[in-house]
Amino acid sequence: MTTDHPSRALATFAASLHFDDIPQHVVERAVNLYVDWLGSALGGKGARPVESIALFASMAGAANGNGQAEVLIDRTRATPYFAAMVNAAASHFVEQDDVHNGAVFHPATVVFPVALALAQAARASGRDFIAAVVAGYEVGIRIGEFLGRSHYKVFHTTGTAGTVAAAATAGRMLGLSPVQMLDAFGSAGTQASGLWEFLRDAADSKQLHTAMAAANGLMAASLAADGFKGATRILEGEKGMAAGMSTDADPARLTDRLGVRWALTETSFKYHAACRHTHPAADALLAVMAQHGLKPQDIERVTARVHQGAIDVLGAVTLPTTVHQAKFNMGTVLALVAYHGYAGVTEFEEGYAAAPVAAFRGKVEMVFDEEVDRAYPARWIGKVTVHTRDGRELTGRVDEPKGDPGNTLSREEIAMKFRRLADFSGAASDEEASHLLDAAWGIASETRIGSLFEVDVRA
Amino acid sequence: MTTDHPSRALATFAASLHFDDIPQHVVERAVNLYVDWLGSALGGKGARPVESIALFASMAGAANGNGQAEVLIDRTRATPYFAAMVNAAASHFVEQDDVHNGAVFHPATVVFPVALALAQAARASGRDFIAAVVAGYEVGIRIGEFLGRSHYKVFHTTGTAGTVAAAATAGRMLGLSPVQMLDAFGSAGTQASGLWEFLRDAADSKQLHTAMAAANGLMAASLAADGFKGATRILEGEKGMAAGMSTDADPARLTDRLGVRWALTETSFKYHAACRHTHPAADALLAVMAQHGLKPQDIERVTARVHQGAIDVLGAVTLPTTVHQAKFNMGTVLALVAYHGYAGVTEFEEGYAAAPVAAFRGKVEMVFDEEVDRAYPARWIGKVTVHTRDGRELTGRVDEPKGDPGNTLSREEIAMKFRRLADFSGAASDEEASHLLDAAWGIASETRIGSLFEVDVRA
Repeated sequence: MTTDHPSRALATFAASLHFDDIPQHVVERAVNLYVDWLGSALGGKGARPVESIALFASMAGAANGNGQAEVLIDRTRATPYFAAMVNAAASHFVEQDDVHNGAVFHPATVVFPVALALAQAARASGRDFIAAVVAGYEVGIRIGEFLGRSHYKVFHTTGTAGTVAAAATAGRMLGLSPVQMLDAFGSAGTQASGLWEFLRDAADSKQLHTAMAAANGLMAASLAADGFKGATRILEGEKGMAAGMSTDADPARLTDRLGVRWALTETSFKYHAACRHTHPAADALLAVMAQHGLKPQDIERVTARVHQGAIDVLGAVTLPTTVHQAKFNMGTVLALVAYHGYAGVTEFEEGYAAAPVAAFRGKVEMVFDEEVDRAYPARWIGKVTVHTRDGRELTGRVDEPKGDPGNTLSREEIAMKFRRLADFSGAASDEEASHLLDAAWGIASETRIGSLFEVDVRA
Repeated sequence: MTTDHPSRALATFAASLHFDDIPQHVVERAVNLYVDWLGSALGGKGARPVESIALFASMAGAANGNGQAEVLIDRTRATPYFAAMVNAAASHFVEQDDVHNGAVFHPATVVFPVALALAQAARASGRDFIAAVVAGYEVGIRIGEFLGRSHYKVFHTTGTAGTVAAAATAGRMLGLSPVQMLDAFGSAGTQASGLWEFLRDAADSKQLHTAMAAANGLMAASLAADGFKGATRILEGEKGMAAGMSTDADPARLTDRLGVRWALTETSFKYHAACRHTHPAADALLAVMAQHGLKPQDIERVTARVHQGAIDVLGAVTLPTTVHQAKFNMGTVLALVAYHGYAGVTEFEEGYAAAPVAAFRGKVEMVFDEEVDRAYPARWIGKVTVHTRDGRELTGRVDEPKGDPGNTLSREEIAMKFRRLADFSGAASDEEASHLLDAAWGIASETRIGSLFEVDVRA
């Protein structure tokens, strides 16, 4: 599809999308992504930056006595604006929310908080909820692809593209017309922000980016419903998002096979609780260790062969001093998978600074790999070279890391990840987790979405 | 002052600034700017985009029953977050809030809403209020200068630099330590946004930018008070604001003569209610008309000789269809001053589409001028060439438009402008305006800043 006004085409698509237009397998994947997101949202409970944002929200007016949306980490009620803000912060903390490889964009953490908060406030149906979620995914992913690699070098795409994705979701929940949806895009896009500078300091901005993308997107759509006008070419215009924040933007990506290609199904689940840029190498290391029956003690050194984006994002951290920083440290991630076979929230929390892990970390280097870089971001190939203590040079490779569309998680694996996260943070007991899961798998057929935890109590 | 860590130097300055450090003439100018801002904030009452933002704020949680900050357009109480948001939207609507020429930045509209809301909530003193205001001006202006002309081509500096200015103001009001202030800068800067794309459509984003700069800056400082960490080099870092949004950033500008040069006093009052880029030519036209005793009917055509920034910002609007768009239309502004000697809110509202104005508009063209462009943005020179019906070619010139530091407004002129704006919007009666003015001139010596309107009632 080509058009001289892609912002309008994309907004019209988002405003017009109905549940019945969405193929069944896409609906099913959306439900899986919802359950996966819910686990991440619960997993953020107790995290200092998340609790800070929750405290601010409460002081700023969240607890105004008439909110119908739930803040999942503490089960309080708030207005949709603040519930979306806090749930978005929470669901990006443990670094296990989903990601679209090609867009380098985390859709769930900005889309679901908005959809859930507005659905709860309006007692909307599961069908409308799913339509709003799919609209958000399709919009956000295409904007991430459009903004390109030059954008992602400095900007956190989940913050920038995420603001418009949140607006698309909110706009669909609010039933905006195509014209209003375009206004919502304009008001959202002009607020798009999020810089990578915080990574160097292990600062708390990542959760702030998702919190504000969700909140600002919701605000943009609410304003549009009230007639507030936005720029009509905020994405592709001469002084729009790409003009300001990209040097390789490709407008054709914005409308790529709308309604035919379902980008939502290309989204990867994050199996390891680490920055996605570490996953391909982690799985490649697991593969070579399994193939040759290696123990961590057998390994002299590891070379992770990566794309430039991995070096850009991971390069700044050399000696991690916090769990969050460790999740962006290739050496720590490879050490954890070498010792535990998995780098989950518990492995990070308990093991990132352990002596054997620290020692293994020092044996890992990253090098740029031409093939991996060429394939990226469409494919995230994992390649490692392992030198063993007994002098062998072995190579490991995965073409699709675990959780990617061609190597996706089963519903059982998603439920297991959910239980691990709820248990890790203490946001829900085992029994509560079971009730939450039961209800979440059935979200698409809910007639009136309400409290998640009240369902639990009634059960 | 040179430093390898300008973000820190600037944050430390802002956190450490005390009232007694500020020269008396700077305090006096700050009070003048406050009164000028208050008029603009009242002037926004009833404006559709402003009322939309106020409605959203109220639905999102502003009216939570314990707010101590005032929303000036409707005299309701709200939390500081929402009061700052709405007052910032309101004070940027009539296009008469102040501007710093060199930074192309409107400080008042993002600084005062934050300072006033937090002062009211804490019943702070006028001395602390002034210190917070001066901190915000000094920080925001230097960041605007730092980001440079390349930034302003696409980004609305008042939205971007304004977010950090608001954080500096809020941080000073909250008594942040230098380390916390640097955190606040980090959380604010990573949220910096605002694109010029909306101008083409005459969309409502300009007030959204100031609303969110104020609110996000206040949030950033509040989070910092709670230990929320921000990037320590958000301004100059490799993935910071300049890296993402400027190609000609000059870090030396960030710390230019801190504590010696008071950039606040370089701020211009806006005499005409139009985009600042039109003012030099408007005053030059008034000058040539006065010098030669010309009436509008004597004029065949006018060539406004302008800097590139004026063409970039004003160029998009050819036929204004709204008052707001008219304020960004050189032809309309020159027509209004030609007929009325002044382009104020009333002249725009009643006259922008009048037949003689529309006819005059068609006689105006803008051309790039080498000398004007070289001087910009340090000096905003106005040059026009007028061709008269009787065949003369006359030139008009002003080296400093009315309201600029060397041609500043008197307190009487500021008060008159205040009364015009309050009357225009109906936000305050004549009597209320008198009471508000009396109190506002004395803000620096207030012991406990409270409600502005209650003072009015008690009087």
